[in-house]
Amino acid sequence: MTSALRFEIDQRCHSTGARAGRVHTVHGTFDTPAFMPVGTRGTIKGLTPDQIEATGTQILLNNAYHLMLRPGADLVGRRGGVHEFMRWHRPILTDSGGYQAFSMADINDIDDDGVTFRSIIDGARIRLTPERAIEVQNELGADIIMAFDDCPPSVDSANDPAARNGPARRIPPIRSKRKEGDHAVRRRLAHERTVRWLQRCRAAHRRPAEQSLFGIVQGGLDLELRAEAVEAICNIELPGYAIGGVAVGEGPDLIGRVVEFTAPRMPADKPRYLMGVGYERDIVRAVRAGVDMFDCVLPTRNGRSATAFTRYGRLQLRNASHREDDSVLEAGCPCYTCVNGFSRAYLRHLFLAGEMLGPILVSLHNIQHFQRLMLDIRRAIREDAWSWLMSAWPVTSPDSESGQLDAGSPTTP
Amino acid sequence: MTSALRFEIDQRCHSTGARAGRVHTVHGTFDTPAFMPVGTRGTIKGLTPDQIEATGTQILLNNAYHLMLRPGADLVGRRGGVHEFMRWHRPILTDSGGYQAFSMADINDIDDDGVTFRSIIDGARIRLTPERAIEVQNELGADIIMAFDDCPPSVDSANDPAARNGPARRIPPIRSKRKEGDHAVRRRLAHERTVRWLQRCRAAHRRPAEQSLFGIVQGGLDLELRAEAVEAICNIELPGYAIGGVAVGEGPDLIGRVVEFTAPRMPADKPRYLMGVGYERDIVRAVRAGVDMFDCVLPTRNGRSATAFTRYGRLQLRNASHREDDSVLEAGCPCYTCVNGFSRAYLRHLFLAGEMLGPILVSLHNIQHFQRLMLDIRRAIREDAWSWLMSAWPVTSPDSESGQLDAGSPTTP
Repeated sequence: MTSALRFEIDQRCHSTGARAGRVHTVHGTFDTPAFMPVGTRGTIKGLTPDQIEATGTQILLNNAYHLMLRPGADLVGRRGGVHEFMRWHRPILTDSGGYQAFSMADINDIDDDGVTFRSIIDGARIRLTPERAIEVQNELGADIIMAFDDCPPSVDSANDPAARNGPARRIPPIRSKRKEGDHAVRRRLAHERTVRWLQRCRAAHRRPAEQSLFGIVQGGLDLELRAEAVEAICNIELPGYAIGGVAVGEGPDLIGRVVEFTAPRMPADKPRYLMGVGYERDIVRAVRAGVDMFDCVLPTRNGRSATAFTRYGRLQLRNASHREDDSVLEAGCPCYTCVNGFSRAYLRHLFLAGEMLGPILVSLHNIQHFQRLMLDIRRAIREDAWSWLMSAWPVTSPDSESGQLDAGSPTTP
Repeated sequence: MTSALRFEIDQRCHSTGARAGRVHTVHGTFDTPAFMPVGTRGTIKGLTPDQIEATGTQILLNNAYHLMLRPGADLVGRRGGVHEFMRWHRPILTDSGGYQAFSMADINDIDDDGVTFRSIIDGARIRLTPERAIEVQNELGADIIMAFDDCPPSVDSANDPAARNGPARRIPPIRSKRKEGDHAVRRRLAHERTVRWLQRCRAAHRRPAEQSLFGIVQGGLDLELRAEAVEAICNIELPGYAIGGVAVGEGPDLIGRVVEFTAPRMPADKPRYLMGVGYERDIVRAVRAGVDMFDCVLPTRNGRSATAFTRYGRLQLRNASHREDDSVLEAGCPCYTCVNGFSRAYLRHLFLAGEMLGPILVSLHNIQHFQRLMLDIRRAIREDAWSWLMSAWPVTSPDSESGQLDAGSPTTP
């Protein structure tokens, strides 16, 4: 199979599994380790492409599921694909829609051929199979496309506060040992189906010279199953591989353990993508385990709910403590919002008044926060400078609370 | 009184009352005739200051009423004023809050001293007098501030479809001759009160070296009262004067007649500002009558409701005709949205999906549409080229329908 993707590793860390390099695609290059902000419906909410580019973003993610339902992947295809449609001319990755089909649809019937669910827009019955998921992504035309896999629930996230910041999922809580036994059976079935479906995805892919299909290693928290999944999935020759089914509510330590087990077993010469992760320290830990790519809704979703990321923790801008706070979100931050001197007092006013500019300015800052972290991570890899990284970014330290900051935080000049 | 404002007229039109020039303020200069987009609560909805500047905007308007209620004019004053607060370093004009106090408040008691109304935010009783309105505007610190006047209803706008695009007002319809007689008495009282209040505003103004107070000529559609108002208001020495109480639902011809009567009677060496107007042909007609400044919510309010302005009329982007329309809003338009090739199909998708980026991209286009019109109006004044203007901007022609365009409009390339 001709690949549309070339992965160069410049530097391997001496003390960890981390590596720094770049991925070349038809729409240009992105540096790794890379962070992809999420543009669900063909737009990162409220941001123009030039604003996104100014945050240091080199690749972004779109959800095939949402674009398939509206305006339709065929319509986007006739417009020349999703790059042309949204006027973002750098690399794009689309997920397969499987995750949303399994987690967001109220009704879904899963069988060996695929999944049937109801559209969240108009309730219409939609059928998604490996072939159809690839057809949709071939129409959208992203540079990296994802395999359609069977995604069973991994843990009880319904009662886990950590899950609130993760992707939206409606998973019934695990209530008994027997239920957990059922889950183990379900996960094994999902694993075997995912391998069969990956073969079908690969066979259905019609644009391998332009678009690179990544397989997804599932297996939940079951490390034995993860080992089997790595073996089976990575045995199928593809330009890259992802770790799926983490960061769905299991907490940072479990994320870290699964990733540290799984990533080093994946091919060393292919990009490794950890789906849906995450907070700063989760990213640093995964990079040290050898992960190259990340996506997460945190900077934009938190931006819309008035939470700003800083190196020292998160600020909730609705708090009364910011009422007359003339400081910027983070002194020295090169983002549009901080460079142009928008104060916490002004941002608080925008959120209290329900003004769109609040989410916009904080999303810009938050995305840039993650892109700056990736820059410093790449430097830490080149210079084997992890203790420097953790002192420059206290929030990445394993013992950091990573929580809300009080007034008078160290980010106040 | 020392004035913070200097008005230069470069060119007077040979065939009309129009003039082109510029106004110098403490925060810089703007060319006249000028169009001011409206940033109600210290933000033009969804747009960053650099995006606003890129539309050609040189001065914008904020509503003292809204900022007074939230976050409070004193709080903005302690931040260094509204320029510092919203990070817009060019000229700003604030209205006095009178218009909103009279039109938006559910309960208002008017007496010779001022008006009491309930806050739209928390129902608190708020007292606004000429002195308080000026104090609020002194705290906000805009370059041009407006007199606090008594604004009676001018016509029955409740049943007029044209009023729907005008500012929000709740005015009881005129139901009888007797009621109209009452209105005439009310308007005369309002006029006399407005003159007394202007004297009080002028006396209360504490920052005349930085902020220029404009008086407002009221009088509704009663030309005799307008003549008296011009005489009385413009007899009070001020850096500029406005025409108020038009474009509240009376339709373009009445707007035009009132403006053509009033503007030429106002001092020729001071800027003349027509408040709340309007559509393209209303602006051109008023410029020809000698008006120098305009503000209107049309480009942003219409932008948020998916209506794009073009030289040939307005496009409603939700229409199915734009579903697969790859053309930009207007071929040749230099706005961010058109230059970067965002298609009508993409914009329609954004509106149907409820995505913020739709209002943002169309507001940018619409503001630039009005700023380009002002550029061409200034050229028409310099070159006495009104027929050129009306052929370049069919929408400004007095017999233009100025309405919605069908698919396959002349703006399609």
